[in-house]
Amino acid sequence: MSLAGRSVVSIDDLSKEEIETIFRLADEMAECPRRFWGRATAKVLATLFYEPSTRTRLSFESAMQRLGGGTITQADMSASSAAKGETLADAVRVIGKYADAIVLRHPWEGAPHLAARYAGVPVVNAGDGGHEHPTQTLCDLYTLRRKHGRLQGLSVALCGDLENGRTIHSLAFALARFGAGVYFVPGDGKDVPNYVLRRLEREYDTRVQRVGMGILTALFGAPAVAPEGAPEVNAIYMTPTAPNQLALLQEDGTRMEIRVPDSGSLALYITRYQRERDGQAGAARRAGRYPVVTRELLKVPDFEHVSILHPLPRVDELSPEVDQDERSLYFEQAGYGVPVRMALLHLLLGLEEPGPPPTWKPYERPHRSPSYSRPEGPLCQNEKCATRHEPQNAPPTFEVVEEREPVLRCLYCDQETIPTLYGRIKDKLYYPIASFRRNRPRLDNVVFFLSPAEAFNRGYAPGGPPRRGTKRHNSSRPSKGTVRA
Amino acid sequence: MSLAGRSVVSIDDLSKEEIETIFRLADEMAECPRRFWGRATAKVLATLFYEPSTRTRLSFESAMQRLGGGTITQADMSASSAAKGETLADAVRVIGKYADAIVLRHPWEGAPHLAARYAGVPVVNAGDGGHEHPTQTLCDLYTLRRKHGRLQGLSVALCGDLENGRTIHSLAFALARFGAGVYFVPGDGKDVPNYVLRRLEREYDTRVQRVGMGILTALFGAPAVAPEGAPEVNAIYMTPTAPNQLALLQEDGTRMEIRVPDSGSLALYITRYQRERDGQAGAARRAGRYPVVTRELLKVPDFEHVSILHPLPRVDELSPEVDQDERSLYFEQAGYGVPVRMALLHLLLGLEEPGPPPTWKPYERPHRSPSYSRPEGPLCQNEKCATRHEPQNAPPTFEVVEEREPVLRCLYCDQETIPTLYGRIKDKLYYPIASFRRNRPRLDNVVFFLSPAEAFNRGYAPGGPPRRGTKRHNSSRPSKGTVRA
Amino acid sequence: MSLAGRSVVSIDDLSKEEIETIFRLADEMAECPRRFWGRATAKVLATLFYEPSTRTRLSFESAMQRLGGGTITQADMSASSAAKGETLADAVRVIGKYADAIVLRHPWEGAPHLAARYAGVPVVNAGDGGHEHPTQTLCDLYTLRRKHGRLQGLSVALCGDLENGRTIHSLAFALARFGAGVYFVPGDGKDVPNYVLRRLEREYDTRVQRVGMGILTALFGAPAVAPEGAPEVNAIYMTPTAPNQLALLQEDGTRMEIRVPDSGSLALYITRYQRERDGQAGAARRAGRYPVVTRELLKVPDFEHVSILHPLPRVDELSPEVDQDERSLYFEQAGYGVPVRMALLHLLLGLEEPGPPPTWKPYERPHRSPSYSRPEGPLCQNEKCATRHEPQNAPPTFEVVEEREPVLRCLYCDQETIPTLYGRIKDKLYYPIASFRRNRPRLDNVVFFLSPAEAFNRGYAPGGPPRRGTKRHNSSRPSKGTVRA
Repeated sequence: MSLAGRSVVSIDDLSKEEIETIFRLADEMAECPRRFWGRATAKVLATLFYEPSTRTRLSFESAMQRLGGGTITQADMSASSAAKGETLADAVRVIGKYADAIVLRHPWEGAPHLAARYAGVPVVNAGDGGHEHPTQTLCDLYTLRRKHGRLQGLSVALCGDLENGRTIHSLAFALARFGAGVYFVPGDGKDVPNYVLRRLEREYDTRVQRVGMGILTALFGAPAVAPEGAPEVNAIYMTPTAPNQLALLQEDGTRMEIRVPDSGSLALYITRYQRERDGQAGAARRAGRYPVVTRELLKVPDFEHVSILHPLPRVDELSPEVDQDERSLYFEQAGYGVPVRMALLHLLLGLEEPGPPPTWKPYERPHRSPSYSRPEGPLCQNEKCATRHEPQNAPPTFEVVEEREPVLRCLYCDQETIPTLYGRIKDKLYYPIASFRRNRPRLDNVVFFLSPAEAFNRGYAPGGPPRRGTKRHNSSRPSKGTVRA
Repeated sequence: MSLAGRSVVSIDDLSKEEIETIFRLADEMAECPRRFWGRATAKVLATLFYEPSTRTRLSFESAMQRLGGGTITQADMSASSAAKGETLADAVRVIGKYADAIVLRHPWEGAPHLAARYAGVPVVNAGDGGHEHPTQTLCDLYTLRRKHGRLQGLSVALCGDLENGRTIHSLAFALARFGAGVYFVPGDGKDVPNYVLRRLEREYDTRVQRVGMGILTALFGAPAVAPEGAPEVNAIYMTPTAPNQLALLQEDGTRMEIRVPDSGSLALYITRYQRERDGQAGAARRAGRYPVVTRELLKVPDFEHVSILHPLPRVDELSPEVDQDERSLYFEQAGYGVPVRMALLHLLLGLEEPGPPPTWKPYERPHRSPSYSRPEGPLCQNEKCATRHEPQNAPPTFEVVEEREPVLRCLYCDQETIPTLYGRIKDKLYYPIASFRRNRPRLDNVVFFLSPAEAFNRGYAPGGPPRRGTKRHNSSRPSKGTVRA
Repeated sequence: MSLAGRSVVSIDDLSKEEIETIFRLADEMAECPRRFWGRATAKVLATLFYEPSTRTRLSFESAMQRLGGGTITQADMSASSAAKGETLADAVRVIGKYADAIVLRHPWEGAPHLAARYAGVPVVNAGDGGHEHPTQTLCDLYTLRRKHGRLQGLSVALCGDLENGRTIHSLAFALARFGAGVYFVPGDGKDVPNYVLRRLEREYDTRVQRVGMGILTALFGAPAVAPEGAPEVNAIYMTPTAPNQLALLQEDGTRMEIRVPDSGSLALYITRYQRERDGQAGAARRAGRYPVVTRELLKVPDFEHVSILHPLPRVDELSPEVDQDERSLYFEQAGYGVPVRMALLHLLLGLEEPGPPPTWKPYERPHRSPSYSRPEGPLCQNEKCATRHEPQNAPPTFEVVEEREPVLRCLYCDQETIPTLYGRIKDKLYYPIASFRRNRPRLDNVVFFLSPAEAFNRGYAPGGPPRRGTKRHNSSRPSKGTVRA
């Protein structure tokens, strides 16, 4: 399907082939941007920022203007129409009449999904809370591909705050799709969440292993090879199931050791500690160890051909000493924001050939498992989810991920909500979720509940004595109803 | 007179013919906006917003950019130069050197009038407090004309908050000029002010009647036909004096009943309750009945061909249920903001033909009655009037409306100030205003006062015993010196 | 050297010839701006404002758009990336990838110097605290040159607040370079600082004299010729050393009297009292006399052909009464901001001929005396200096001005820091600065200190008994370590 007229809410909205198409066009645009001036003549891009941003907004505007198009900007959207009580859906329906595409940043997770259903023009997500930032992911991938010539077979160590910020998770998913290997090297207490690892295995055909950190230990300022008997820092390594990658791990008694892959195929992607997403308790946790890129690190022979990426802004995890080093790609990475976004806008606006503007494609979030959306509930358990703020325009909608027992993954914010009960619509009886798998009810006859009280309030009654499944349910399921996905 | 070089401060600045010219050009621009790109090459539009706005500002900027022009923007003007104590006159004189036209939003009523006297380039009012918003009125008229093919003979029900916001009054005046009929259907306590009705009769050749609400009762959620003996909700109906409209009112015993006019010529224009203009007491008043457009309403057969307009943003007076209904025009209405503003800018900037830019026309507010402006006073009684904030650049200037006794209508903010005394300049004596009509003094020998103290301070003495007129004055005039106009 | 690819941080960065080149191009642009549209096609200018501004920002954006280029704007930079703890150096390195040039306003003095070392594209200073504002100075000079046909031989009275704001000092230095004479006519307590006068004499080949105010007394509302024996208000007059100017001063007993030079060569440049730079104590000081331009002043026959300039915004030092007077040039002066900035951008961006963009010239501040920069110190004593806020990217660097004893003039903010001791690196001994001149140490063997404690902390010991020089040091040097330059 052509990209013309489509919205980009998640990096998952783009197929590998579409990403390759964007990158090939970005190559041309990086080489000679002047050649594309005039393509967007008489077109207008609206940039609507409900949270402040400089670099993302300015790079989109620069991209549009280098194509010859106009830009209209509300850099502090929250101060204006939202203050009059207008819904996001109404706001984008109106702005969509003024512009040919909308770039949106919003604190609600899933807000661009909502917007993409109403705007009447393509919507590009420029960051929705801690959820997605697909054009950042595109720039990251593009920088790696441009430097290393390919993504398949590359090894990328994702370092730093791997807990907060789904942008880093999006990058992992995308790297998995392209057949790259990923090492997760977290700061203390900032581990990559388990559901991300589960999802990598389940949906992206990868193999996840806990391994010794080997050479990557040097990121913590320790010697590259730990002394005999010292407590080992663990990394997590994710490989495509294709066997060639596995050779990089050398089995050494009880654990596997990371060997740096063939020279020139390792990248370090380091992120700052996201204090603002961590609340009060955060500052204390940061006191632990955190991977840092310094001049010393780059003297380690195994890193001779490494490339260093960082989404910026940095704080102290990336020393300015290495700015001049030719392995440091982070300013180039920032610069690629313009040609990548030029290419993306070019394709979404259908500028490749003259003629009428492309027909708008109403947004549907792609998903593999069946979807579930019922007025009876439940709500997405992520309070920042767009479905919690504007349910009349973004009714709760989930993908029913089957993993022994059903898990509801929100199609707006990707957070997982775990029902404990399900009801059968036709007889208004409810059962523990643990019996779901055995009973295999049809989804169109099912409503999920988070608690008996919820079921009761909806007019459902308990459906018979507890069965074997119930017990397993009580012991093996987390008691909280929510997991970030 | 050509529009090139002129300012648009009020919808009254534009003749019917000029409005038609704008609309014909907007038709072309709506059909093929690309064709006009390049007309404004090398021209720059400044948008100066002393109050925040998203939609108005962005639609102007989109319009200018679709013409190929540039835009320079201060979205929060109050935070910058005004903070250094600069006058509005100085600010626009400077910005007028940077730009070919200025779009201004300002909290002072009449501020664009002031600006249009100093800027040296055309000024377009983008909203001045609760006063005027002429391009909104243009879009409203354009939407009606485009949908119904004409304005003359159309029936438009103006519904909701008819007290606050002169934009709704401007629309009524403009509809009257084009020969449309208007029903006023207010929420409880939000009646259209009497001076608006008086002005409609006096200056716009209309006939105003209080009538039963008939079919429009359905707007309040009541059955379309009230039960026998129920208290009747009243509407006010304004018709052009041309007789053909009167047929729509059917006399039924003691009152007239609204019959919906011929199918396809009725529009509902509904507005939100303007809480922000109402102060503390407002919330309570809103508790009363308020007209609402719902899906139920649109099922009433008489509304089969109605069109629904709303200036947006809405709150709860317009149900999202009807968004998909083809009678709902409000998003189209918002979208027409671009071609209408393109057409207006095109004409003001004189882009229709190549050559030097048009000569700037210094702004004069058109008025029918003689004008009055004296250093002795009085001040306009509207504290938000520009003449109260920057009198050195906007000296109080009134139109002397003759309605038995003189009323001073401010040429900046349209508010009416009612003098209680007048003095004769040549002999420095003052008299009660009630004797004005009988004595017929020449205006160039007259100064008006609001109180004896004011007259005394200016050096005037009472001019003889009270006469017959005085008594009438005391009983028939409102004691407050001010009426919103 | 061509201007293409260079930064403009200070008016001193531009030679007389380069300024003339800018002005000749500005002449063409003022005459027919349309002719230059399209030159900047596909180029983008970023305007980054860490302090609010309307007129400077909008005039740059208008200039760029009239050249056909695009603009990306962060009007409130301090609210965004800076809040995430990003350095200025990182911010401009990223923005420099999005844009072809950067216009920067920043509260740190010397911040544009820092930015110009990292941005990778030309940086133009749009005001750095109270330090420089070179494009304002260009507009001032251009207005004078355009009105009077030349700068050499012109007499300019700089009036008002001559203490705060180096922009007025920059203008004096620039006028000196062009051979104009300058009268300093301060408000009470707002005298031009002594170091400015010293610098004029020392570096700009001028002669500075304290003279009677003569005809300029009229600026204070006093009669043009003071009564016999009245206390004389003093002006300071700076002339090029070329003798022809001196004829303007007529020796009259004990003092020189200003005679207005040949008709048509006198300009009054009046500035507002800069309350915001003066802190709490300021308001009181303003109570004194302050030069004011009124209608009365312009009736004095000697001012028949004077021209009146003001950088705007004004407060009360320039009466609106004279706005219509043809001698009032201040709105024209504001308007020249566009062609002057068009010309400057045109040259910096290398638009004069097609081809690849110009190579970026890394910024070096021009200086005459040897430079000094050591990790041992001292710090610049100006707390607003960029070297105090981001020393990792702007290490303290000085020009060693030799004036009996060395003075360190900061190459970022121009403020003078006065060392009291110097150490010899090879033997780690320190001496009083008074002995510096006699001992003539080599600068590459020297480190300066502000106090014995500082020297001690750096590991230096006193270098022998006090000598004759010490005494002079104690008596003749100011005890504070800092002087504004």
